[in-house]
Amino acid sequence: MTENGKQNGIEALQNVRVVLVEPTHPGNIGGAARAMKNAFLKHLWLVNPRLFPHPDAVARAAGAEELLSDARCAGTLDAALAEVHLAIGTSARARSIPVPLLDPAQAAHTLLREATRGPVALVFGRESSGLTNEELDRCQFLVRIPSNPDFGSLNLACAVQVLGYELVRAAAAHEGTGPARDSVSHEQMRHFYQHLERVLVALEFLNPAHPRKLMRRLIRLYDRARLDPNELNILEGMLTAMEQRLG
Amino acid sequence: MTENGKQNGIEALQNVRVVLVEPTHPGNIGGAARAMKNAFLKHLWLVNPRLFPHPDAVARAAGAEELLSDARCAGTLDAALAEVHLAIGTSARARSIPVPLLDPAQAAHTLLREATRGPVALVFGRESSGLTNEELDRCQFLVRIPSNPDFGSLNLACAVQVLGYELVRAAAAHEGTGPARDSVSHEQMRHFYQHLERVLVALEFLNPAHPRKLMRRLIRLYDRARLDPNELNILEGMLTAMEQRLG
Repeated sequence: MTENGKQNGIEALQNVRVVLVEPTHPGNIGGAARAMKNAFLKHLWLVNPRLFPHPDAVARAAGAEELLSDARCAGTLDAALAEVHLAIGTSARARSIPVPLLDPAQAAHTLLREATRGPVALVFGRESSGLTNEELDRCQFLVRIPSNPDFGSLNLACAVQVLGYELVRAAAAHEGTGPARDSVSHEQMRHFYQHLERVLVALEFLNPAHPRKLMRRLIRLYDRARLDPNELNILEGMLTAMEQRLG
Repeated sequence: MTENGKQNGIEALQNVRVVLVEPTHPGNIGGAARAMKNAFLKHLWLVNPRLFPHPDAVARAAGAEELLSDARCAGTLDAALAEVHLAIGTSARARSIPVPLLDPAQAAHTLLREATRGPVALVFGRESSGLTNEELDRCQFLVRIPSNPDFGSLNLACAVQVLGYELVRAAAAHEGTGPARDSVSHEQMRHFYQHLERVLVALEFLNPAHPRKLMRRLIRLYDRARLDPNELNILEGMLTAMEQRLG
């Protein structure tokens, strides 16, 4: 914890555990450990690994052996998720279950934000068949790595690497702007877009009879930028100043 | 080529070749092929592989065998870069050579933009020691995957996966907005920021005696959003409309 009581981004990563459910190949466990260490992650949990410990795991860990020796084994996913207050499951394919789907960047931001408050988990399924629907029911969100729909199955360690990469990016963004780098709620963004639309109409830049295309483009732009609260304040302040001048 | 003569994003990926320089472990060649197929990439070039073809490569390819059978071997990096008009080299560490450093997202956008005009290459070095300075001299840019500085070496296939992931994201962005999704030049952004500053001063929202912090925050926001030309036109149009109303 830093002085102001908030953890910074890299520190928060310590609260992200990686859970591998029934991994078949010990080499993939080692590869996942290496990918985790690249991304400052430390806590590996294994649910019923087929072969572990195993020399193939050590070989592929390539310097991340301490993650293997510290790895915790569990008999059930529930046991591996003890104390965890947010779990995000990974999936290579569309699922019919009603769990909200995130992209890797969104998943990383969500995990990191919640990791400042306690342990969170990123859950990976079996190499062959992923997670069962029952296991996904234990997760509050699903994340899918965008890829070729005709060949969407990633190597397990490589999937850990991509999500680890997004966690590092999210942590760096978090560090760069300090504790203020909280996310802005959907409701706050909706309010901003309504405000923006009113000002653009008053400015006669937007024809209220045909607002859609212009507003949709602006919404896409600002959604993509992922404003922090400070930036949102600046933009709202600009709109208010503009409104006052327009009378 | 689509009707209007521009390639879309996924098509452009066909012009991105992956070059592995002196890979030691055939398993990594197979893992790289699998990661490439996940990302719609097809053209694998190998510079002096130690063992190839090899059953370990086939095993790790896990369904991407056709990339291995189509792989081209070359005796030198120059031969693997024939016809290539842009090469981006990967590096796990800071290099003293004066090649501009990109992050993976920037590298993907740069590759994809140039791929619409012909073959481009993403070059990976040896597992143990990466690319030599002489090999990096053949590259116009360097890309580094952000990671733990105390453990920054990624598995080769995992590094291909992360850059492939960013290429898919870049291609999807390209698709979503069609051929207009060209990037905006540094000069155009500089012009926009000057225009924005003038309007904010006229609006008395920005104190010209102390413009720095506010402008720096806005620059960071819009830089992060990576405007396309259409979006830039909208924002410039809004500024011009405001200027006219402010007199």
